[in-house]
Amino acid sequence: MDDKKITPRAEDYSQWYLDIVEKAELAENSAVRGCMVIKPYGYALWENFQKVLDGKFKELGHVNAYFPLLIPKSFLTKEAKHVEGFAQETAVVTHYRLKTDPVTREVIVDPEAKLEEELVIRPTSETIIYDTYSNWIKSYRDLPLLINQWANVLRWEMRTRPFLRTAEFLWQEGHTVHATLEEAEEEAIQMLKVYQWFAEEYLAIPVIPGQKSESEKFAGALRTYTIEAMMQDGKALQAGTSHNLGDNFAKAFDIKFLDKDETEKYAWQTSWGLSTRMIGALIMTHSDDKGLVVPPKIAPTQIVIVPIWKDDSQKELVLAEAKKLKEQFAGFSVKLDDRDYNTPGEKFYQWEKKGVPLRVEIGPKDIEKNQVVFVRRDSGEKSFIPMSEVSSQAKSTLDNIQSSLYEKAKAFRDSRVYEVNSYEELKDVVENKNGFALAYWDDSAENEAKIKEETKATIRCIPFEQNGVSGKSIISGNETNHRVIFAKAY
Amino acid sequence: MDDKKITPRAEDYSQWYLDIVEKAELAENSAVRGCMVIKPYGYALWENFQKVLDGKFKELGHVNAYFPLLIPKSFLTKEAKHVEGFAQETAVVTHYRLKTDPVTREVIVDPEAKLEEELVIRPTSETIIYDTYSNWIKSYRDLPLLINQWANVLRWEMRTRPFLRTAEFLWQEGHTVHATLEEAEEEAIQMLKVYQWFAEEYLAIPVIPGQKSESEKFAGALRTYTIEAMMQDGKALQAGTSHNLGDNFAKAFDIKFLDKDETEKYAWQTSWGLSTRMIGALIMTHSDDKGLVVPPKIAPTQIVIVPIWKDDSQKELVLAEAKKLKEQFAGFSVKLDDRDYNTPGEKFYQWEKKGVPLRVEIGPKDIEKNQVVFVRRDSGEKSFIPMSEVSSQAKSTLDNIQSSLYEKAKAFRDSRVYEVNSYEELKDVVENKNGFALAYWDDSAENEAKIKEETKATIRCIPFEQNGVSGKSIISGNETNHRVIFAKAY
Repeated sequence: MDDKKITPRAEDYSQWYLDIVEKAELAENSAVRGCMVIKPYGYALWENFQKVLDGKFKELGHVNAYFPLLIPKSFLTKEAKHVEGFAQETAVVTHYRLKTDPVTREVIVDPEAKLEEELVIRPTSETIIYDTYSNWIKSYRDLPLLINQWANVLRWEMRTRPFLRTAEFLWQEGHTVHATLEEAEEEAIQMLKVYQWFAEEYLAIPVIPGQKSESEKFAGALRTYTIEAMMQDGKALQAGTSHNLGDNFAKAFDIKFLDKDETEKYAWQTSWGLSTRMIGALIMTHSDDKGLVVPPKIAPTQIVIVPIWKDDSQKELVLAEAKKLKEQFAGFSVKLDDRDYNTPGEKFYQWEKKGVPLRVEIGPKDIEKNQVVFVRRDSGEKSFIPMSEVSSQAKSTLDNIQSSLYEKAKAFRDSRVYEVNSYEELKDVVENKNGFALAYWDDSAENEAKIKEETKATIRCIPFEQNGVSGKSIISGNETNHRVIFAKAY
Repeated sequence: MDDKKITPRAEDYSQWYLDIVEKAELAENSAVRGCMVIKPYGYALWENFQKVLDGKFKELGHVNAYFPLLIPKSFLTKEAKHVEGFAQETAVVTHYRLKTDPVTREVIVDPEAKLEEELVIRPTSETIIYDTYSNWIKSYRDLPLLINQWANVLRWEMRTRPFLRTAEFLWQEGHTVHATLEEAEEEAIQMLKVYQWFAEEYLAIPVIPGQKSESEKFAGALRTYTIEAMMQDGKALQAGTSHNLGDNFAKAFDIKFLDKDETEKYAWQTSWGLSTRMIGALIMTHSDDKGLVVPPKIAPTQIVIVPIWKDDSQKELVLAEAKKLKEQFAGFSVKLDDRDYNTPGEKFYQWEKKGVPLRVEIGPKDIEKNQVVFVRRDSGEKSFIPMSEVSSQAKSTLDNIQSSLYEKAKAFRDSRVYEVNSYEELKDVVENKNGFALAYWDDSAENEAKIKEETKATIRCIPFEQNGVSGKSIISGNETNHRVIFAKAY
């Protein structure tokens, strides 16, 4: 067993994150630059994310489909801003065959198998999907078209970090088409609210929903909506985005329909996505110096039973009781750790690192007393539970852990959101106080860029919730009725 | 609405297949050569496949994980036979950036962003996964390692057909590691049996399980097992394969473990996969000249209710009753087609093309008589069902459709399997009788290749089930105790 400790957050936050990813066995770097291997425990989290989101998407009328991994280079260029946003980071397929070099006997790219038009690996699928949609949509009866895709995408990144920024990542991307701009707007907002619901209800991550500034919006969108979370170092993480694409792509890909009034119109579109990046947000919201902390509602294992014995006769008795105990936890995701080559102490340590919400210990003395020991991962709190109450107490304990994690994260976040009324105050917040600066803003993109350059802080969003009081934009002094969030971000 | 008819099988089998794919709205070609778009109805089938298979894999102790899409070229070459098998059909990534040409203003591949080592898009993941495994496996305690991946893969194909042969396809690939050859063999056989169970129990496709010949086995495997199905034109379709990889890849990727006896040993491996190709098998096993036929246990929609009305007052009454009726089908996947711009006849026609197993019609007269009409997709049989029995009758009808489809496919298959005792007889079967030729075989790979060249028939498998009688191999005359299946194949 590997005994390297997890680096404390206070010592090196960035290394702490990498240590959690490693020690909780979530992911690791692969031999391919920037591409991670998602290990079974990390993938089990993603599967739980998928289950919740996919269920909700379908409840709201969406269906899944699958579109090609490869996109003709020319498609990417059809929407001018879109290609600008993605050209710099696309992997390009230029050939379709390898061969053995007749001289060196080495395997080389066959120069004769060069593609006429290069293909890029999808960095996102608007272009390839909308090319298809242009054939599918003829009439208002074909609308709304509500499709989602679960897929891998690839964006070549120079500096990568598991989950947070990887070349290849997994996500879902919704792509809908509507008869009116209003309907597209409604859909974009609805899906942002789904992301907020998922983040808060399941991941126990409080988020601030709002709109992106013009500089920060999606390449090709009319408006981008986002949910922004605060990590434990006070930096922001964009946890999901939803775009009202207007008719930008409809015009680029000729998506038109015959409306009820018998006139032909361009359609209105949205796209929205949430990725494995969210696992990074989960880690950085709840985990501590002992390891990962996973909210019960999304945990691959909610309860781990650790049986305790000293010798073989005890072992038999305890394991028999532990198996009966396991049956009492029907309906929960529960694991009985019956390995006999690890001590209970080693097991505690391992499951703690993996963030299992509730540990249940059972030994000969507990059996005598007709009780078990509950240990909460979030607080470390230990309690003795009568055998007759284990099931109901497990439920209430897990519910309590779920809400405690949310409340704790929210209290932390709220304590780090500062209203600022000048650029100096803004700087102080993002540079010294490690938090979100809420500043009045009605200013130029140039000033926004200047702040980014000087402080590394960007406008994370213009929160939907505003208090209705107006004030002066912190650089231009223009009067405005909204504050925006400036923060450093992942 | 598009009124082009489905080409009858007798007229052009190949076009019939393409028509079904189109008319049932399963998939379509994309702008990228050989890559298909899987439409919502086709993808819903795949989701049902996934649900059943994923559940079974997990029940047997497997967990899911995710490995990189891209593989360094050098990895592919580590196992000599493996690269030989896949080099000809890999898409190669050579660059990681596009840029705007300063002169022409066109978007071009940035020559400065050339990769030092080319990456190929995974045609299958043995190499990238086993490179990772070599770090994970240290001790016998790490074994068995039972991992599955759901992923897209890409094999450049010159002649493509939706589902059956596409450049990009979706699949699952299991990759397991064991302490002994015997355990690996057991796993490979177990997973083949899972595929057989899935094909027969869910897809109602009878299959013949057996072993591949040396010429036909997976590139890098010790032994390949397969399930072979017969399509309606008598051709074979390989519906799933499971490989005992021996220690070939363990040696190539240095996967060793310290065994209980304290000596270091190479590990033993298996891999097994089933892909979207299986949707092609499903189509070609059950469908008819009217469209797709889907077995109830895998159908995205099991029951469609078509309400029938003549005027608005009838409409209101009938829709109200149809909604009540829908509630009686709780537990089934049911759709109420309440569109008012299609006639009932148009709806019948559409759902027939999509292969929904059971159509339920309800009109004013039925309501008067307190009954509904059931129409089976497989037989076209029509029956009047008292309202009080709709739920129980739906269950028994769907069960009956499921078993009828299997029996019908099996009877067809059995009628086309011929024991042959000479090469002439073999030729007659594959060339004139359009079936499987069961021939004694203990012969050279050269003779196998000769038969392939002369008749296009290949050895589909050496069936596990043999009758114990021996005979003379059809070309060499060698005495042998097994017959093999020769057939043309997809």
